[in-house]
Amino acid sequence: MGERISKRIGKQTVRIERPISILSCGSVAGSKEGQGPLGGRFDIVLEDDKNNEKSWEKAESSMVENAIKTAINKAGMTADDMDYILAGDLLDQSIGSTFGIRAIDRPFIGLFGACSTFGESVAVGAMLIDGGFAKRVVAAASSHFCAAERQFRFPLELGTQRPPTSTWTVTGCGAAVLGNADNAPFIREITMGKIVDMGIKDANNMGAAMVPAAADTLLAHFRDTGRNPRDYDLIVTGDLGYVGKELLIEIVGNEGFDISKNYTDCGIEIFDRDTQGTDSGGSGCGCSAVTFAARFYDDLKSGRLKRILFMPTGALMSKTSAQQGESIPGIAHCMAISHE
Amino acid sequence: MGERISKRIGKQTVRIERPISILSCGSVAGSKEGQGPLGGRFDIVLEDDKNNEKSWEKAESSMVENAIKTAINKAGMTADDMDYILAGDLLDQSIGSTFGIRAIDRPFIGLFGACSTFGESVAVGAMLIDGGFAKRVVAAASSHFCAAERQFRFPLELGTQRPPTSTWTVTGCGAAVLGNADNAPFIREITMGKIVDMGIKDANNMGAAMVPAAADTLLAHFRDTGRNPRDYDLIVTGDLGYVGKELLIEIVGNEGFDISKNYTDCGIEIFDRDTQGTDSGGSGCGCSAVTFAARFYDDLKSGRLKRILFMPTGALMSKTSAQQGESIPGIAHCMAISHE
Repeated sequence: MGERISKRIGKQTVRIERPISILSCGSVAGSKEGQGPLGGRFDIVLEDDKNNEKSWEKAESSMVENAIKTAINKAGMTADDMDYILAGDLLDQSIGSTFGIRAIDRPFIGLFGACSTFGESVAVGAMLIDGGFAKRVVAAASSHFCAAERQFRFPLELGTQRPPTSTWTVTGCGAAVLGNADNAPFIREITMGKIVDMGIKDANNMGAAMVPAAADTLLAHFRDTGRNPRDYDLIVTGDLGYVGKELLIEIVGNEGFDISKNYTDCGIEIFDRDTQGTDSGGSGCGCSAVTFAARFYDDLKSGRLKRILFMPTGALMSKTSAQQGESIPGIAHCMAISHE
Repeated sequence: MGERISKRIGKQTVRIERPISILSCGSVAGSKEGQGPLGGRFDIVLEDDKNNEKSWEKAESSMVENAIKTAINKAGMTADDMDYILAGDLLDQSIGSTFGIRAIDRPFIGLFGACSTFGESVAVGAMLIDGGFAKRVVAAASSHFCAAERQFRFPLELGTQRPPTSTWTVTGCGAAVLGNADNAPFIREITMGKIVDMGIKDANNMGAAMVPAAADTLLAHFRDTGRNPRDYDLIVTGDLGYVGKELLIEIVGNEGFDISKNYTDCGIEIFDRDTQGTDSGGSGCGCSAVTFAARFYDDLKSGRLKRILFMPTGALMSKTSAQQGESIPGIAHCMAISHE
């Protein structure tokens, strides 16, 4: 029968065998993100978050198109060089992605993992290349504060108060071109996550809702690979924020893994909490995507970081599920990305 | 560099090299679908479309869980044997899938291709197995008439009139277990589609909106493989319905490919238009999924059909995009599935 599952390590992890490189990244960020700590590192910062479009949703699509085109340009390629576009976002029926990608004439694989979508698209893209189905792909994810707030919570015009556990949806799109090449950084091991639901129902405390899934994937990764936190220069989650970060350190600490020394979260990196009023930190599909594209990618490429474990996190809820009294299931996908 | 893209044929098609088999299918269908031509072939027919749940959305999730579990049982396996679950649906943030899969403790890859999602999940699943990343996966897609109507169009209680071009969203979930095995049927070539938008804005004529994408993928498949319609016993689209079917025959006919003799659509197969009042036919993610699971899978397994080209079709719109005056982009993914 020729069964071959040699790329699997343990129960939940796979190893990318060939050198699958992140050839380039592109990032488009909103004006608030541009005023934050990473402001100087984004490829494009919007002057106005409507980006000359008629709606926030259309503005999100324009960011998707521009981030993907920027990433492809920076790789010295054209859209024709991409075998697949893999992307997704938070908007109903993923219109942020689909209407942005409509103008790019390439096969499209739409993904949904809520705010973990960037991890999902990079991971699936790397597997498709390593499997021999693509030479190059572009993977992307986006979110828009204004579009997300009115869809998931309340229209901004209401001026609803935000509790301190709440996170701030990032306006931005990050895109990465992946290909089989010898240029750092490389995608090595991938641990796709399970849906984990511990019954949390507070849509203003997404960090806490996602932590059980993040812990589940992280522990699976350590178990499958035999590694521990010290094997990574940095462990980077997607959008757990300050509240979620402390919880994750505690939960995996209780299982014997100390991540307190070398762990951060994209939602913490992207905003300055003290001056930007972003409470527990950034969130949304765009959070891990633009923070990776603008910061961690460069550090891995230059060798300032040798090896990171990158884990975008997602909360799998909708306004309908919340209105029907459902809890918020979480998911997280992680991957080892190395300079060597 | 060890580049290897030997699985690619032409610009847009890939060949699955190993014998990747559809080991089993599971189908759960609504009561109206149960009264249609395929009624006797579904594994489970709901007596009531709420399925003892408190909402239509929760009923959809219960169908997802049951269809996946049924498919796994019919393969003689347990959930633990599945390396990935790949699934998606039409509801905002894919809650039909995520809340159904929550109870199944396996890594989850969420997908969104609107009504093409079953094709996308089977295709990506087959590539992950052939690439060596999984031994077995389960791929699924679902929709629910009542949940979709109130989300995309109007609450059913309004009694809105339906124009004759409109399609009827199928209540159902189809799931397929894929694995590397010698049992027919096998997934052979896959052509992932591009987003195609010809400017159609009528949400009551989804067939017409999706036809350009279906034609684009079909012609790409013929071009890449050097095949023509006679190489297939049957060409099967997802949910173009009667209106879309005629248009597709005409468009690909103009390009020199006559599909008029051996082409049908799942939306035509699943309902009896004359007695069921379903206008142009069935639609929704569940349409191609349950029709494949309950009918075409059995025919391919027994050898009554030797080779089909299966092409689920999707309309990538949301109520927000429609309200903002956007047109309806389409997408279609096709795959050759053979008895030998």
